[in-house]
Amino acid sequence: MKDIQSQRDSRRINIQKVGVKTLSYPITVRDKAQKRQHTVATVNMYVNLPHRFKGTHMSRFVEILNEFHGEVDIKSFNKVLGKMKQRLDAEASHLEIDFPYFLFKARNGEGGHLARYRCQMHGSLEDSDDLKLSVEVPISLPLTEKTPHRLPGSLGRWGKAIVSLRFSQFYWIEDIILLIEEAVEAELCSLAEKERRVMSVEALTRRVGALLDKIEAVKWFSICIHNFGDECSTFAAMESC
Amino acid sequence: MKDIQSQRDSRRINIQKVGVKTLSYPITVRDKAQKRQHTVATVNMYVNLPHRFKGTHMSRFVEILNEFHGEVDIKSFNKVLGKMKQRLDAEASHLEIDFPYFLFKARNGEGGHLARYRCQMHGSLEDSDDLKLSVEVPISLPLTEKTPHRLPGSLGRWGKAIVSLRFSQFYWIEDIILLIEEAVEAELCSLAEKERRVMSVEALTRRVGALLDKIEAVKWFSICIHNFGDECSTFAAMESC
Amino acid sequence: MKDIQSQRDSRRINIQKVGVKTLSYPITVRDKAQKRQHTVATVNMYVNLPHRFKGTHMSRFVEILNEFHGEVDIKSFNKVLGKMKQRLDAEASHLEIDFPYFLFKARNGEGGHLARYRCQMHGSLEDSDDLKLSVEVPISLPLTEKTPHRLPGSLGRWGKAIVSLRFSQFYWIEDIILLIEEAVEAELCSLAEKERRVMSVEALTRRVGALLDKIEAVKWFSICIHNFGDECSTFAAMESC
Amino acid sequence: MKDIQSQRDSRRINIQKVGVKTLSYPITVRDKAQKRQHTVATVNMYVNLPHRFKGTHMSRFVEILNEFHGEVDIKSFNKVLGKMKQRLDAEASHLEIDFPYFLFKARNGEGGHLARYRCQMHGSLEDSDDLKLSVEVPISLPLTEKTPHRLPGSLGRWGKAIVSLRFSQFYWIEDIILLIEEAVEAELCSLAEKERRVMSVEALTRRVGALLDKIEAVKWFSICIHNFGDECSTFAAMESC
Repeated sequence: MKDIQSQRDSRRINIQKVGVKTLSYPITVRDKAQKRQHTVATVNMYVNLPHRFKGTHMSRFVEILNEFHGEVDIKSFNKVLGKMKQRLDAEASHLEIDFPYFLFKARNGEGGHLARYRCQMHGSLEDSDDLKLSVEVPISLPLTEKTPHRLPGSLGRWGKAIVSLRFSQFYWIEDIILLIEEAVEAELCSLAEKERRVMSVEALTRRVGALLDKIEAVKWFSICIHNFGDECSTFAAMESC
Repeated sequence: MKDIQSQRDSRRINIQKVGVKTLSYPITVRDKAQKRQHTVATVNMYVNLPHRFKGTHMSRFVEILNEFHGEVDIKSFNKVLGKMKQRLDAEASHLEIDFPYFLFKARNGEGGHLARYRCQMHGSLEDSDDLKLSVEVPISLPLTEKTPHRLPGSLGRWGKAIVSLRFSQFYWIEDIILLIEEAVEAELCSLAEKERRVMSVEALTRRVGALLDKIEAVKWFSICIHNFGDECSTFAAMESC
Repeated sequence: MKDIQSQRDSRRINIQKVGVKTLSYPITVRDKAQKRQHTVATVNMYVNLPHRFKGTHMSRFVEILNEFHGEVDIKSFNKVLGKMKQRLDAEASHLEIDFPYFLFKARNGEGGHLARYRCQMHGSLEDSDDLKLSVEVPISLPLTEKTPHRLPGSLGRWGKAIVSLRFSQFYWIEDIILLIEEAVEAELCSLAEKERRVMSVEALTRRVGALLDKIEAVKWFSICIHNFGDECSTFAAMESC
Repeated sequence: MKDIQSQRDSRRINIQKVGVKTLSYPITVRDKAQKRQHTVATVNMYVNLPHRFKGTHMSRFVEILNEFHGEVDIKSFNKVLGKMKQRLDAEASHLEIDFPYFLFKARNGEGGHLARYRCQMHGSLEDSDDLKLSVEVPISLPLTEKTPHRLPGSLGRWGKAIVSLRFSQFYWIEDIILLIEEAVEAELCSLAEKERRVMSVEALTRRVGALLDKIEAVKWFSICIHNFGDECSTFAAMESC
């Protein structure tokens, strides 16, 4: 009897994951216009351990990261995951990075500004590998008038779109951003036709979903659209099946 | 052919969740020593919608919350979830609150201080209801000496324990906190015996797990122990099966 | 020569302030409608020390705070400052608290919601006492249309107003909030007359300034108006002379 | 009478500052080991305006920033400040940037890790220019033992040092960081001699102050040392005269 109890207990209290969290690290990511861009990521690295686990070399996570000198693309992601799984003798390995991605937005030929988009890449490797990319796109309502001699101010922050994607082939971060910005503009135009000023989170979620659904390279997606209010945000969310 | 395609598309792009996020709200929670304590919560409320969804009254979420005047306990949680499901005609309803919980820690009879613990309650109601409580307990290493006339400073923040629990019967938040603080102390004592100064996240995770495993009222638990370093945190995590 | 150098050095490297920061504490504040409201503050307490300083009892800060059981008003503020100055044998004492203040906003008789305003009170006591109150008021643009059966979403967060004030007599937090919200509405109405949709941070700063300037109870004020854009905020600031 | 009143009012309600805040921008900063390093800054830019102010071109701030392609050093700082003052026809201009600075810390020949330090540069130009650099250095207590086959965990985060400096000649960020880390180590050694384990914020503030006071290139400095506790931080602060 005692043996069974102890088996149950030890099974219930096995460590399942160990790793490092919120490591700050300078990285370079692929950029359609400039080939590569420099940014700074927050990194999580962890592994699933076999049942008979005897202690992890936490410093190995950082060692593996250092070997890649911050170069982030699909290839290096898979290599880091593979090295983690092998050197830590793990059942599965996980790598999560969170970074700002910058995109220059020209303004009618005269100047422009750098727009900032929060991105996340979550990769894991067990028997097969999995990679998910998330992009957060700020949403503003456009100004319909401009006073001639000065920046007229903005209407504020309407909200944000968070889109997560799994791909069957390479796709540029820029192209995801532009696709979402296009969906917002299309929704606003259709509202203007109906003489309404207010976008709904549900309608915008459906519109972004319809666009993503048509892209061959997209295997899976989820969408969450937030509308900022003074007291709270309202949101709508969906996932492809 | 066209019909099947359009069915597939519309199925793929159905809205699945709508609601409100990051609403700030003053609440009262049950408190073993004082019966009830006042605190301030951040609230998320959302519902899963049936496939033929025609638009949600976002203001209803706030209306339902107002009807309970911020009184939070298991009973009111289930009532809010029930009203959300019914009034929004939803398949499932979700309520998440995040709040600081305060506990007075006496210091050898003479004075003391209010300790702050971050708590989260996540409830949902579909066919049956589910409630999960999470408590975050800061971990410090104790001082072994004190200079007589002044507070000697602390050794800093070693890390934190985040414990999530599902219960089969009522359990006080205080008792969860004390149980985790007891596990930390026991681990430190066992280290002192071995003349080692450094706790490992793995050993502490196992010790907290072993304690939670013995509590009848606990149906399910997960544990994540973080150790803060200068550059990143290391962590170990486990879940009861 | 050596003596003069050592005097200069020791004068240059005297400790000037000691205290505690970011202490979380439940408080009650005065409320026009309900007499008192419960909220949670973040507290900083520190003192300026005389030149011949020999070490501070850090725990005394918390002891003094505990004696007031979280009751915050002008009277208790001055008492805490006085006790800090006396018990820590200090040249000056400082108390800073930061808390959310809640105000119920009724909506045309039917229901309403709790609005949240970030407030700060900064008090100090040297030869005389000084107390400054800051209130942060979120600014949204109003909807000009509503679809009948659902909350139509918001236009987003236009920005925020941060107003700091010194008073010659008691003034309710509610009344400051309402005054700022009134200024925003007046500015929007004047824009509507000119058929413009966009408020400027400068015009709104001047309008709030003109209103505060007329209030007898206000001895001094500063204003900072922020307009949120996608990439950054623009702001205008002024201070009464 | 009426005229005097209106003069007083309009003087009291003049705009004093306008600008942009929390703009995210990729930059390069000077680096002793690698010549330049890439990082990401948060940027504030604003100007003081003359009394007869007629509206600012907010977009000009971003235009000026773009002209420097994110190259940050003392020279470019002064050029940006000069352009802001001139193009916005301002009495004074201000530029504030906040960025993580990375430094590789080798570990006894075998590997190492990238340490992250938060830095701020605040420059202003009125009749003359002023530049202040702040560096935040995390403080940990060292481990005195190591188990052979694994990273033994850390003792946690003791606190942090924030040092602000004005220089009379160029000084490397690395050298400031190393100087503070040296002061912490010296303080710990002197504690070990006295067989005490706990550093005080006051003693460490004085020790860092004594070191900075000896550096010729330092015209002015301020120091704030924080010790993290579970409930709050304690701190001591000083400023050179």
